[in-house]
Amino acid sequence: MMNVTIPLDVLPENRTLYEQNYRLATHDVGRLMLFAGDQKVEHLNSDYYGEGIALDNANPLHMFQIAGKAKIGVFAAQLGLIARYGMDFPQVPYLIKLNSKTNLIKTSQSDPFSKHWLGIKEVIEFRKSSRLPIVGIGYTIYLGSEHEADQLHEAARLIYEAHKEGLLSIVWAYPRGKAVSDEKEPHLLAGAAGVVACLGADFVKINYPKKEGIASAEALKEAVQAAGRTQLVCAGGSNVEAEQFLQTLHDQIHISGASGNATGRNIHQRPFDEAVRLANAIYAITVEDKSVEEALQIYRG
Amino acid sequence: MMNVTIPLDVLPENRTLYEQNYRLATHDVGRLMLFAGDQKVEHLNSDYYGEGIALDNANPLHMFQIAGKAKIGVFAAQLGLIARYGMDFPQVPYLIKLNSKTNLIKTSQSDPFSKHWLGIKEVIEFRKSSRLPIVGIGYTIYLGSEHEADQLHEAARLIYEAHKEGLLSIVWAYPRGKAVSDEKEPHLLAGAAGVVACLGADFVKINYPKKEGIASAEALKEAVQAAGRTQLVCAGGSNVEAEQFLQTLHDQIHISGASGNATGRNIHQRPFDEAVRLANAIYAITVEDKSVEEALQIYRG
Amino acid sequence: MMNVTIPLDVLPENRTLYEQNYRLATHDVGRLMLFAGDQKVEHLNSDYYGEGIALDNANPLHMFQIAGKAKIGVFAAQLGLIARYGMDFPQVPYLIKLNSKTNLIKTSQSDPFSKHWLGIKEVIEFRKSSRLPIVGIGYTIYLGSEHEADQLHEAARLIYEAHKEGLLSIVWAYPRGKAVSDEKEPHLLAGAAGVVACLGADFVKINYPKKEGIASAEALKEAVQAAGRTQLVCAGGSNVEAEQFLQTLHDQIHISGASGNATGRNIHQRPFDEAVRLANAIYAITVEDKSVEEALQIYRG
Amino acid sequence: MMNVTIPLDVLPENRTLYEQNYRLATHDVGRLMLFAGDQKVEHLNSDYYGEGIALDNANPLHMFQIAGKAKIGVFAAQLGLIARYGMDFPQVPYLIKLNSKTNLIKTSQSDPFSKHWLGIKEVIEFRKSSRLPIVGIGYTIYLGSEHEADQLHEAARLIYEAHKEGLLSIVWAYPRGKAVSDEKEPHLLAGAAGVVACLGADFVKINYPKKEGIASAEALKEAVQAAGRTQLVCAGGSNVEAEQFLQTLHDQIHISGASGNATGRNIHQRPFDEAVRLANAIYAITVEDKSVEEALQIYRG
Amino acid sequence: MMNVTIPLDVLPENRTLYEQNYRLATHDVGRLMLFAGDQKVEHLNSDYYGEGIALDNANPLHMFQIAGKAKIGVFAAQLGLIARYGMDFPQVPYLIKLNSKTNLIKTSQSDPFSKHWLGIKEVIEFRKSSRLPIVGIGYTIYLGSEHEADQLHEAARLIYEAHKEGLLSIVWAYPRGKAVSDEKEPHLLAGAAGVVACLGADFVKINYPKKEGIASAEALKEAVQAAGRTQLVCAGGSNVEAEQFLQTLHDQIHISGASGNATGRNIHQRPFDEAVRLANAIYAITVEDKSVEEALQIYRG
Repeated sequence: MMNVTIPLDVLPENRTLYEQNYRLATHDVGRLMLFAGDQKVEHLNSDYYGEGIALDNANPLHMFQIAGKAKIGVFAAQLGLIARYGMDFPQVPYLIKLNSKTNLIKTSQSDPFSKHWLGIKEVIEFRKSSRLPIVGIGYTIYLGSEHEADQLHEAARLIYEAHKEGLLSIVWAYPRGKAVSDEKEPHLLAGAAGVVACLGADFVKINYPKKEGIASAEALKEAVQAAGRTQLVCAGGSNVEAEQFLQTLHDQIHISGASGNATGRNIHQRPFDEAVRLANAIYAITVEDKSVEEALQIYRG
Repeated sequence: MMNVTIPLDVLPENRTLYEQNYRLATHDVGRLMLFAGDQKVEHLNSDYYGEGIALDNANPLHMFQIAGKAKIGVFAAQLGLIARYGMDFPQVPYLIKLNSKTNLIKTSQSDPFSKHWLGIKEVIEFRKSSRLPIVGIGYTIYLGSEHEADQLHEAARLIYEAHKEGLLSIVWAYPRGKAVSDEKEPHLLAGAAGVVACLGADFVKINYPKKEGIASAEALKEAVQAAGRTQLVCAGGSNVEAEQFLQTLHDQIHISGASGNATGRNIHQRPFDEAVRLANAIYAITVEDKSVEEALQIYRG
Repeated sequence: MMNVTIPLDVLPENRTLYEQNYRLATHDVGRLMLFAGDQKVEHLNSDYYGEGIALDNANPLHMFQIAGKAKIGVFAAQLGLIARYGMDFPQVPYLIKLNSKTNLIKTSQSDPFSKHWLGIKEVIEFRKSSRLPIVGIGYTIYLGSEHEADQLHEAARLIYEAHKEGLLSIVWAYPRGKAVSDEKEPHLLAGAAGVVACLGADFVKINYPKKEGIASAEALKEAVQAAGRTQLVCAGGSNVEAEQFLQTLHDQIHISGASGNATGRNIHQRPFDEAVRLANAIYAITVEDKSVEEALQIYRG
Repeated sequence: MMNVTIPLDVLPENRTLYEQNYRLATHDVGRLMLFAGDQKVEHLNSDYYGEGIALDNANPLHMFQIAGKAKIGVFAAQLGLIARYGMDFPQVPYLIKLNSKTNLIKTSQSDPFSKHWLGIKEVIEFRKSSRLPIVGIGYTIYLGSEHEADQLHEAARLIYEAHKEGLLSIVWAYPRGKAVSDEKEPHLLAGAAGVVACLGADFVKINYPKKEGIASAEALKEAVQAAGRTQLVCAGGSNVEAEQFLQTLHDQIHISGASGNATGRNIHQRPFDEAVRLANAIYAITVEDKSVEEALQIYRG
Repeated sequence: MMNVTIPLDVLPENRTLYEQNYRLATHDVGRLMLFAGDQKVEHLNSDYYGEGIALDNANPLHMFQIAGKAKIGVFAAQLGLIARYGMDFPQVPYLIKLNSKTNLIKTSQSDPFSKHWLGIKEVIEFRKSSRLPIVGIGYTIYLGSEHEADQLHEAARLIYEAHKEGLLSIVWAYPRGKAVSDEKEPHLLAGAAGVVACLGADFVKINYPKKEGIASAEALKEAVQAAGRTQLVCAGGSNVEAEQFLQTLHDQIHISGASGNATGRNIHQRPFDEAVRLANAIYAITVEDKSVEEALQIYRG
């Protein structure tokens, strides 16, 4: 069983709780299988209804059903949504996503800003009144946005307060804004990972780098190092073939040194059974150290 | 009698109160007849005085008299207005509309922002000092506005705090701003409904979708699904013929799956007796499951 | 003696105080003679020194001397000014004007915003430490300004908190900003009056409407109705002949249904004795139900 | 010995302290000799080092040495600076300047805003922990700036809270911003003085007016009157010949009716001994009612 | 052993702690060797990975290992980063850098603003829960930025509150923004140093001045004087040859009168052993009063 290094901003009386949350989320191996269910705000209904998307997905219940059945580390969603479905899925480890914005305004109109909806006080109250196993919080920052100062301020405080209370903290870190010309440039993404290390989060989620002349899995190494003791996971991105998806994930973990994955669309846009099987396949690679072939067998049932 | 699923952010000691408020507002059938009386700010005096508007309507007393006599679910208005008339209409179930703005500034000049006037603390104090049956709060958000971040922040907090105290929460959700080209596009409206589901509100009020080549009642289905356990009602819109109005409402409920309606102008712009009869006809369809013909008979007295 | 309808946001323990303040300010007849002394900020020194202005008026003491001698309902000024003169005029019923701005920036440069200087907490503290008879508070809003959201937010809170403490609240409501082309249009002014009704203020002060083809006294009726139980008074405007001024006031009350007046310059720009006599004449029409002729006799001494 | 009229916003338990502070600052004659030491921020190092400036002045110690040796009313500086030198000059009556800005941004780029650094709570704490004789606070407002609303809000609160605690309050009032074409126009300056009267400050510091065809000492009279019971002093301005400086001060007091002076550069840009003698000469005119000739003899030693 | 002058804003009960922190940070000689580890945010990954940078530096652990082994005064970094590594380096005297921003947005796009991440309350809590020897806080201000008012406000409060608690405060002061044409102009930098003196910080860190026709070491004297009792150190700047670096530092201390140095890149971009040796060489000049030659011998091992 792995050792958990507890950050020093966790209050002494909450160190045990922090360790429990960390072990629960990472199934005692330190790798995170994050099932992302927060995109009904970020992408409105485009991830949930339309061509190539299973009809099940039109209703938010679908995501909870997957989270309740599949092997996952945490299910990330907004508090308000969890408050309406959690009573039927009381065993799922939840991560409260504290900020979200729609995609209606493009960067060409104005730089992105995603303000917190609720704070740690509310998360703690909610954990108590709901009795759900809430293990941590998530927050998105846009580095290079004209609102960066407010985002860093909010992120630093939320992470600090989450730790105090024994909660994990995960930061979605995206370079974005008029000042950013290439959001997937490896060196820039490594910089973003380093910023999150300075914020003190437990995990940083970045986009998978992309650059002419270098394999993404190689390019990601710089970010893994820059993040230091903050563990790095990549966003799953848009819906792709399962085999390619699983291979990429395996590369991120075994070539780049990533500590898991954060996957939404690739799972919940599939019909229920297939979605559960894919989630289990992702879990197999992430947590159970399976090969791509073994994972594919799980996916194919 | 229907089952009420109580959201998990309601404090344990207020779960009974929440259920009572929900049953009172929806007359134990889960459908909401919301009589909207908040437009003296939104539309200034244009909904209250002018050609085609009954003279009764020039005075705000008119709306309270209708709310006091007709069958409704809740009467929505600003706290300040309720504070001046509520003593004469102490049985009306009130919904406090917490934000409002005028229509003087057009989107071409600057994107809309409707800031909260008062918070849940004030609503609770007022419920106690007034002894009125206040069942919930309302809040308007403009998705796609450059002020979206502040609106989502306010909405999330107000809904969360309302629930804590056992109050219902209803969100008026309008995509609006320079980034929004078609405010009634069905897919966009479904997105708005999904955002409100993530905010955790009990009801979302949207405009009735409108799109070439698809019946609105069909088009609304996507939003009803996207809203999940958050119940959806449509805005009544501008004053139309009673028959057409009632048919549309019937379609929204029985074809699209909506859970009621939110009607203002169509009721209060009529003379008192007619207004009461129309409200009762709307109630008949919404709560009593009557046909359009039965409702029309009520309207015609 | 008139009945006072106490708004429901007044705390039960302060209902008697509210009624006393209302009766004191309106001399038991429900009509308000407001002597406005807040324009040293709004108009800088232009209302106090220059051609056609009595020299007495150069010193702020002048206004207090008038307020101390003449028959008035309330004297409205900023707390800081009252704090320096109130000890010599301890019997004057004061209204604390909570916001003010200068006129240096024109609307063509940027839309108006008048932020609160102090809040209800300070008014209550000051009432206690000064022992002055402070009966209420005043606040100016600019509807249609790009700062409307902040102004409505502040107004709603100040009115609500004033009522809680048993204080009257009066709103100066001006449509103003780049979006407003005609500030004196009757329908727009009626809209402004309706907004203040929704804010829950006791009195709304608007400019006297002006429109081609309709007498202002007729045009004002729409606003009086729109204000409902919120009582309406008109601003006195710039300095005019006494006879015309008194006739206009009489019309506002007896034709339009206004409940008083708010007069500043017309009084304090006159020499002390004449100013007192004009104030008494205004009081005679407003509170004592005198005719224009009777009032003129008072003015002429 | 003069009478001190204590403003009504001073808490009853602090009335004695206010009177003591007022008498200490004005040496029992009601006139203020303010030695201004806050310009290391406002003018960066240009008032402290360069051609025509005594080398002593390069080090901030110089100002404290003058304040410790010369006859002055109060020495105004930022809390942080006083915290480092006050232990060696424990008898100096200090005035804490609560806001300051640099001069790097010109009005043509953006309108001025000088935000408070600290509040009254900190001043009271500091007075207690430092045991220094702190008699009051200072604050600068820019009327006509696009940030006027925030500046008035801050000024009103700081003055109110200072008074509550028995502290004097002095406002530096400058019309400035794109909307202001002539910052020294007498009528405008009188307006500024009137605004400060409404804010309730004890003293207002303005620039000496300047207008074609009228002597400045005559022109200043309007402002003295407009300020009412708020006492007016003029800024010393840039370094000029001692004789001219003292004559101007004498005129301001004996012709215009000003109640003192606020002088910085003219004193501290001189070598230590000369600086002390000039300060004493200024004090002689301000507090000891000496003639210009007598003051010049003091200056010349 | 030097005398420590304790600023008067330190609470009496924390005066001993302040003195201990000051002596610890300056090794009882009053000169500061600050090892800067905050640039993973300011410069993203460009100071940590790339041509000419030791591979060790790709991982944040490298900086902590240097801080743990070398002779330094304080190690400055963000709280979040310290929270993850401090348990392995519990003897290092830490300085919490309270604000940071990335370099993605250039001044030509918008003026810089670096908002505080956390406040003194959090630093005190963290010191207690972590048991690390935290001796002070750091904060960066951009003078001449359009956000200067907010930066000065934050700086003043953080310094004041740090002192209250017995913590040292260090301000990184950079003139920057569209209004600033030459960031290294000596007179301007002296102005910046004077501003920090008025803020009351213990140390000010500025860039080394640069001007045609004057040696930088001479030019820096003006700033040292302007800072008064606030001690001045220069930023180390980009990576240069050790000899030149040490000579410059020696000049700053022995010619200009600086009180130490703040060095980041020059140290941590070197491989571990060399980095430790350079840090020790810097320490030798700063704290042990060694010559450049002696320091070079240390560097060369």
